[in-house]
Amino acid sequence: MLGSQRRYVITFGCPDRTGIIARISSFLAEAGGWIVEAAYHTDPDTGWFFTRQEVRADSLPFEVDELRARFAGVARSLGSDTDWQVDDTGERSRVVLLVSREGHCLYDLLGRVASGELDIELPAVIGNHPALGDITRAHGIPFHHVPFPRGDAEGGAAAFRRIRELVDEHDPHAVVLARFMRILPPELCTAWAGRALNIHHSFLPSFVGARPYHQAHARGVKLVGATCHYVTADLDAGPIIEQDVIRVGHGDSVSDMVRKGRDIEKVTLARGLRWHLERRVLVHGNRTVVF
Amino acid sequence: MLGSQRRYVITFGCPDRTGIIARISSFLAEAGGWIVEAAYHTDPDTGWFFTRQEVRADSLPFEVDELRARFAGVARSLGSDTDWQVDDTGERSRVVLLVSREGHCLYDLLGRVASGELDIELPAVIGNHPALGDITRAHGIPFHHVPFPRGDAEGGAAAFRRIRELVDEHDPHAVVLARFMRILPPELCTAWAGRALNIHHSFLPSFVGARPYHQAHARGVKLVGATCHYVTADLDAGPIIEQDVIRVGHGDSVSDMVRKGRDIEKVTLARGLRWHLERRVLVHGNRTVVF
Amino acid sequence: MLGSQRRYVITFGCPDRTGIIARISSFLAEAGGWIVEAAYHTDPDTGWFFTRQEVRADSLPFEVDELRARFAGVARSLGSDTDWQVDDTGERSRVVLLVSREGHCLYDLLGRVASGELDIELPAVIGNHPALGDITRAHGIPFHHVPFPRGDAEGGAAAFRRIRELVDEHDPHAVVLARFMRILPPELCTAWAGRALNIHHSFLPSFVGARPYHQAHARGVKLVGATCHYVTADLDAGPIIEQDVIRVGHGDSVSDMVRKGRDIEKVTLARGLRWHLERRVLVHGNRTVVF
Amino acid sequence: MLGSQRRYVITFGCPDRTGIIARISSFLAEAGGWIVEAAYHTDPDTGWFFTRQEVRADSLPFEVDELRARFAGVARSLGSDTDWQVDDTGERSRVVLLVSREGHCLYDLLGRVASGELDIELPAVIGNHPALGDITRAHGIPFHHVPFPRGDAEGGAAAFRRIRELVDEHDPHAVVLARFMRILPPELCTAWAGRALNIHHSFLPSFVGARPYHQAHARGVKLVGATCHYVTADLDAGPIIEQDVIRVGHGDSVSDMVRKGRDIEKVTLARGLRWHLERRVLVHGNRTVVF
Repeated sequence: MLGSQRRYVITFGCPDRTGIIARISSFLAEAGGWIVEAAYHTDPDTGWFFTRQEVRADSLPFEVDELRARFAGVARSLGSDTDWQVDDTGERSRVVLLVSREGHCLYDLLGRVASGELDIELPAVIGNHPALGDITRAHGIPFHHVPFPRGDAEGGAAAFRRIRELVDEHDPHAVVLARFMRILPPELCTAWAGRALNIHHSFLPSFVGARPYHQAHARGVKLVGATCHYVTADLDAGPIIEQDVIRVGHGDSVSDMVRKGRDIEKVTLARGLRWHLERRVLVHGNRTVVF
Repeated sequence: MLGSQRRYVITFGCPDRTGIIARISSFLAEAGGWIVEAAYHTDPDTGWFFTRQEVRADSLPFEVDELRARFAGVARSLGSDTDWQVDDTGERSRVVLLVSREGHCLYDLLGRVASGELDIELPAVIGNHPALGDITRAHGIPFHHVPFPRGDAEGGAAAFRRIRELVDEHDPHAVVLARFMRILPPELCTAWAGRALNIHHSFLPSFVGARPYHQAHARGVKLVGATCHYVTADLDAGPIIEQDVIRVGHGDSVSDMVRKGRDIEKVTLARGLRWHLERRVLVHGNRTVVF
Repeated sequence: MLGSQRRYVITFGCPDRTGIIARISSFLAEAGGWIVEAAYHTDPDTGWFFTRQEVRADSLPFEVDELRARFAGVARSLGSDTDWQVDDTGERSRVVLLVSREGHCLYDLLGRVASGELDIELPAVIGNHPALGDITRAHGIPFHHVPFPRGDAEGGAAAFRRIRELVDEHDPHAVVLARFMRILPPELCTAWAGRALNIHHSFLPSFVGARPYHQAHARGVKLVGATCHYVTADLDAGPIIEQDVIRVGHGDSVSDMVRKGRDIEKVTLARGLRWHLERRVLVHGNRTVVF
Repeated sequence: MLGSQRRYVITFGCPDRTGIIARISSFLAEAGGWIVEAAYHTDPDTGWFFTRQEVRADSLPFEVDELRARFAGVARSLGSDTDWQVDDTGERSRVVLLVSREGHCLYDLLGRVASGELDIELPAVIGNHPALGDITRAHGIPFHHVPFPRGDAEGGAAAFRRIRELVDEHDPHAVVLARFMRILPPELCTAWAGRALNIHHSFLPSFVGARPYHQAHARGVKLVGATCHYVTADLDAGPIIEQDVIRVGHGDSVSDMVRKGRDIEKVTLARGLRWHLERRVLVHGNRTVVF
């Protein structure tokens, strides 16, 4: 995804103070690390410091596990035992998609994977409806139909248990709700915290919940939008990764808005997913830093 | 505003049926009217038909009053006694601005008027604060300072009565709340219904009310917006004329958002005002048709 | 494509004068025609008048051939024997795609067709390279590989003759060069005039010809774009239907620009194609009116 | 301009290699420097490394001259004797504007200065036409009218010598051609290299030179744009700082394009100027890095 050149991606956060950049960059320099991309940010409200560094793997004389072991010491010395991660772009990201009947986001992601633009593994697509099974299988990807019996809460809970099994089996880097029309139960929000991404078909916080294009039409807005965000137990209220909008007018019916909105949903989700997988998104409270 | 060529602008609404366009255009054709611009729309939800027609004044053998008298018959025959208007672009639009301390919308409008882009009369600018008096007077426009005594409801009511006098004296085509930080009392919303325009510094319906940029920052949105809408008694809930957005990121503080947002507020207000004065905006329920 | 309700679409152009709208709308009204959408434009430079009207098919007491026969008289009376067309949305549009190796536009269009968003027939996809055959066939659409022998002008001419046969067999409403990397020979530009659409991966007229993203990167532009236009014998100089742009920065390599640009190419082509098929695009000289 | 907190801004470029960030950040850390903002970029084509660092002035135990003296050693050790600069935000930027008759960019900048958004000194506005003198003086800024005798090359050269005197007297951080309709002679391009900014009213490289909106209208583009760039001896071909676009349609005449384009010109110039003055723009060949 980051091109063919293998890299290690360090993401790190700690309370801001003098000398953090010096500490991290000196550590890397001493090991011969070639920094390909570096980004920094301090949140003035909370005084929290964030950084993301991409280092050429072949510039370091050791492997990723050794980098992790050594960086742990650096992090500890900066007062941050746990708020860091070292990723290896040599490991391909695994993504599981949850879908329903609306196929535009699925089609779009399948196309990006097939064309090589998105260099990920798609070990499973799970649908609460069989409609998107054929196109998924035509791309050589296993499709699992997990029906939700109508009006049967117990059956719904069982369906989510089945989905959890199917997802967790692959330990994915991202679980993408690609216009999956069900609300994740709290235990799944917790289990997949920080790696469950949703695409909501409005410019949040406007038009939370069901039928946002109908809400937008009724309010007479002049732009409709889409929001890619992390899923939390609060409906449509998780940290926002990316948003975009498209212009609509009085001549656009709800179904025109739906159609125009789809183009925004697709690209917003694709961008959000890419950034997530490239470890560009650092969550801080209910906001994100996107490097 | 529509160029130097004088035109009559007909706006009209009625229940949709067959033959409306034929009726109106035949009426104009028989009088020799040269239609320079024509737009139509039917709202499928309510079955209401809307049109706006610009006719060259010099193509008609009579004056605007005669056009009004004759068009009244056409309108009546189409079942619409009152939902129409005939405007003469030969009459310059009068606009009164209400401002407070934030000057960017005022500066912008003054610049557009001074450069001739916006060919209107500005007979008065009214501020609840004296800050913007100098620049207003430097443009040769009377500035009225109407203070609102802090925490004095009675004094506030008196101030609004004074504002109403100052405004109504000019019978303006538009009363623009150009970042006027007070909520209009219901009686003024009623008195100026359909000609009081507000610029709200968020992408409505997100972030209604006070300090929308603070709200936007707290929610971590990736775009901030502005909304030009008609003022109604429901705060920030009137019919939307125009909206626009600009991208922000994690590096933007609230004050960066305020700064970036200003550029969107200015152009959104200027566009909305222009369309209103050109009679391009037809209100229907809580939505607008913008021709 | 225009929804399930069958409609007749009239497009018409003539020298501007008084009474055209009255003439056309009276003709329709007398026949009981229910106009669902109507748009007008006059080009002030050339004095040419354009209109597009959508009429409910079930509102007329006759069929499309009779409408054509009768409208011919209206057109003649307005001095326009040939510059008009009556289309029946009951007839599904046929589109043939020409592709090469880059699949993003193909994937996108296939997804739109499969999801029902674009209600068209795709009787054939033709590639000068076999790469996109599998995905095309997975959608149940015939794929024809027509190789162009490298450095063999005679072979190239033969390949284009073969392509022409494959295309003309279906008499398509649109021939779409969906990132087809060959320049159409003049005789095909002529044969398919007004229905061959190309997507060029730049904001024309900037960066005509080969490798536009490389040109854009070298020039250091801050936005890259895409242009959907009609193909003419002048390379990348035909009438523009639609354009869009996306922001790039100093951190974007050429391949990043290519990736970001793809999202713009896809939606620009899809919009342009939809408008063309809905007869919203009227060509006048080297410019378009898009209703 | 960077807020009330005084900062030192270091900009620096050198051939890329391992350890640059470590070297610079360690230097700052050892002196106690609190880095408020840091950005890095390496151009993969040329292997050139760029950085910009903002340091809180009150975090360093010495003044800006001492910082310069010490940083010179760091720069030298990294193989870059001259490609660096240390600025003090405590020194207000001086900007001289060159204008002609079109006032929208001038009005806009005056408004930003008056409202405090742009915290700069405007010691002079120079016009080749007297039209914008009044508004300039109303803001308390000296206006110099330097006429260019029509068709008199010698007179033109003299006028430019006079302009140069008027500008150089203030040794400004930026000379802004705010819709100044004259081409700077090569000697002024050289004298003001890297600090003369122009706003061109097209999306460069499209429509170089005179009357770009007329060119855009003739070509039938669907978006018009504006470009803020450094002035070089090559007309409209200098390094691009910022660009933006706005949608236009078949209904827009050239004068509508001019009007819509103005809003884009204003904000594009204002953004480019701000970034320039904040030292966010690093020029490399004919491209810019904008941090």
